[in-house]
Amino acid sequence: RINGERLWDSLMEMAQIGPGIAGGNNRQTLTDEDAEGRRLFERWCTEAGLSMGLDKMGTMFARREGTDPDALPVYVGSHLDTQPTGGKYDGVLGVLGALEIMRQLNDLNIKTKHPIVVVNFTNEEGTRFAPAMVASGVFAGVHTLDWAYDREDAEGVRLGDELKRVGYLGDEEVGARKMHAFFELHIEQGPILEKENLDIGVVTHGQGLKWLETTLIGKESHTGSTPMPMRVNAGLGMARMTELVNEIALSHAPDAVGAIGQCNVYPNSRNIIPGKVVFTVDFRHPDKAVIADMEERYRAGAKKIADKIGLGMDIEEVGGFDPVEFDADCVSAVRNAAERLGYSHRNLVSGAGHDACWINRVAPTAMVMCPCVDGLSHNEAEEISLEWAAAGANVLFHAVVETAGI
Amino acid sequence: RINGERLWDSLMEMAQIGPGIAGGNNRQTLTDEDAEGRRLFERWCTEAGLSMGLDKMGTMFARREGTDPDALPVYVGSHLDTQPTGGKYDGVLGVLGALEIMRQLNDLNIKTKHPIVVVNFTNEEGTRFAPAMVASGVFAGVHTLDWAYDREDAEGVRLGDELKRVGYLGDEEVGARKMHAFFELHIEQGPILEKENLDIGVVTHGQGLKWLETTLIGKESHTGSTPMPMRVNAGLGMARMTELVNEIALSHAPDAVGAIGQCNVYPNSRNIIPGKVVFTVDFRHPDKAVIADMEERYRAGAKKIADKIGLGMDIEEVGGFDPVEFDADCVSAVRNAAERLGYSHRNLVSGAGHDACWINRVAPTAMVMCPCVDGLSHNEAEEISLEWAAAGANVLFHAVVETAGI
Ligand SMILES: NC(=O)NCCC(=O)O
Ligand SMILES: NC(=O)NCCC(=O)O
Repeated sequence: RINGERLWDSLMEMAQIGPGIAGGNNRQTLTDEDAEGRRLFERWCTEAGLSMGLDKMGTMFARREGTDPDALPVYVGSHLDTQPTGGKYDGVLGVLGALEIMRQLNDLNIKTKHPIVVVNFTNEEGTRFAPAMVASGVFAGVHTLDWAYDREDAEGVRLGDELKRVGYLGDEEVGARKMHAFFELHIEQGPILEKENLDIGVVTHGQGLKWLETTLIGKESHTGSTPMPMRVNAGLGMARMTELVNEIALSHAPDAVGAIGQCNVYPNSRNIIPGKVVFTVDFRHPDKAVIADMEERYRAGAKKIADKIGLGMDIEEVGGFDPVEFDADCVSAVRNAAERLGYSHRNLVSGAGHDACWINRVAPTAMVMCPCVDGLSHNEAEEISLEWAAAGANVLFHAVVETAGI
Repeated sequence: RINGERLWDSLMEMAQIGPGIAGGNNRQTLTDEDAEGRRLFERWCTEAGLSMGLDKMGTMFARREGTDPDALPVYVGSHLDTQPTGGKYDGVLGVLGALEIMRQLNDLNIKTKHPIVVVNFTNEEGTRFAPAMVASGVFAGVHTLDWAYDREDAEGVRLGDELKRVGYLGDEEVGARKMHAFFELHIEQGPILEKENLDIGVVTHGQGLKWLETTLIGKESHTGSTPMPMRVNAGLGMARMTELVNEIALSHAPDAVGAIGQCNVYPNSRNIIPGKVVFTVDFRHPDKAVIADMEERYRAGAKKIADKIGLGMDIEEVGGFDPVEFDADCVSAVRNAAERLGYSHRNLVSGAGHDACWINRVAPTAMVMCPCVDGLSHNEAEEISLEWAAAGANVLFHAVVETAGI
């Protein structure tokens, strides 16, 4: 078993970096805070005797050698970047849980046949730069490196430039590494495990996602002196599309979800009719056909709304992945580990996207989940217990070591 | 008659300061650009032999002496501050039209009985600091000076501190001056004059306004892994309230207007359900009772929407003025001037708020309007012709000089 106290202490120490306003973290990808978190992680890895690697997407690799020089490594990890108002565990638990495995293997003086490599992927969250999971996407060959470098944040700063600025632009070709398997531990970010009082989620599938960035062009004019029939109100269009997104998601209950998390209104003045709005729709479902249906209905419905008001409209896909079925053997390794350790468990479909979803395309992959309080995530109040974290890391430990061989 | 070319040249020279993105201006109140505009105005006034005054709200006064030492001055002016994406004429025409009167009185060597004072009021637009027309409001005794100083912009910067920073915090008590009369020239900002092919609007009334800043508190959570029934989506609440505002305004057609020009979503991340939104509703109508009805229905309807979603809600009035009836004698002076000069004209109700609306409480007041292209204002594409500007300034000239006496 891993050392739960040591894991918890590391989680709490990492959470000192980029503290949020209300107890969580703001360590958005490729900010100074992210770089500071990366340096702490690097120091810990070096102290644990791991050798560091860095690829051209800034993804960090920390390797513990195996006994078989020809064996491909087992990879294990997640991401250290956070939402602007993120919690202390989303992603971080997966990286520091993997580090804890290495520390414990050292303490127990266990040598594995396959090397084991801890990974910290760049920009999993997708808030500062869309899409989410961009580095694992490049690793899996879904995006090109140049396209990823050209992603821009809200200030128009390029991802590629920020990689260089914070000192985490590596030399290694992205995706050059071959993986024997990949495992990721993550908090559930949903309510099921806690409600059913279970220790472990064995993640068999991940639902798919579509991000549709919608730009509406109206006409800026005076809120007081422009008669109602002369208005071309982009804000009214956004309001109607928000309702449309909600209706479409509810029509595929209970599994579909849909919402608008980000929106910007221009010029954002109390007495100017919005002349432009930009917002991103987030649709998800475990079935690809349902996502396609939601997108189609959204595009058609939004067009009708825009036409009725007289708005110009552009809809651009800024993120998307298909539903995922994880590798049967890796999933079994997770389930067996939970059984062996005596943890209660059930199968889960991941509601969120994860680096594991992309890596699953190029290596046998599975995920372990632990509960989180009230299913709450992407919120500074995100919370888990030491026991939940330790149970998740123990299952990860056993699944990884079983796969890496002794 | 005034010199239309000179007036136009000054308008174009002022428009060089704080140029917008697309031909208009961004010279928001108490920014460095506003200060630069004020300095140019001050230089012009001094060159015209006027003596400058400055009150504790930063309102600028430029005085031309009269022949009767006991006569109260006639005041004439508007504002030089603009919207973030403002036009070149909104407010500016009223100030520079007043300055043109002084220049022409000098050229014609005309002495008036009453002194004439050109005024530039601080923060008419109300975008950076709500409410609009705050300096004329303090002048008229509607707001206290301390309350006005405490208004904050989106960055939490205080109006009082910005007045000091830009060097326009004067010594003079606000409202200490007594006015014989006040006249304001402004572009219509609406479509009526152009559509009816008229030169001049004789403004008899101004409609009233209510600004209701609404804060909705939901719960930040993951857009992917939070089941629909568990969501407390503040963005959905805002969408429904946007539709409600539109419905309420349309129910009082054709005179009522209602819209939301400014809204901010927190934390504004593509994969976080909005946990908080703040937006300002703008309702207007020429009849006070209708405004009260719109506000009441909005408060009740918004409460229902918030309760259904489970949102916390707070509605705060951040701006408001009652409908205005301008002074009969001043209005006649404007109408007589238009008649005498042979301009086509009609009575108008101002759709926008103006400093004249507050000054009307403490001095006999009236307004002159000229057409603007497509009724468009609060847009960088705001446009008028030299002829329209000159006609408006000529009517202002005659109304002011008639009232000031020769
Ligand atoms: N795990 C997680 O929150 N990933 C961010 C990408 C997503 O929105 O699902
Ligand atoms: N004239 C003008 O645009 N004033 C700003 C205040 C308002 O919103 O009416």
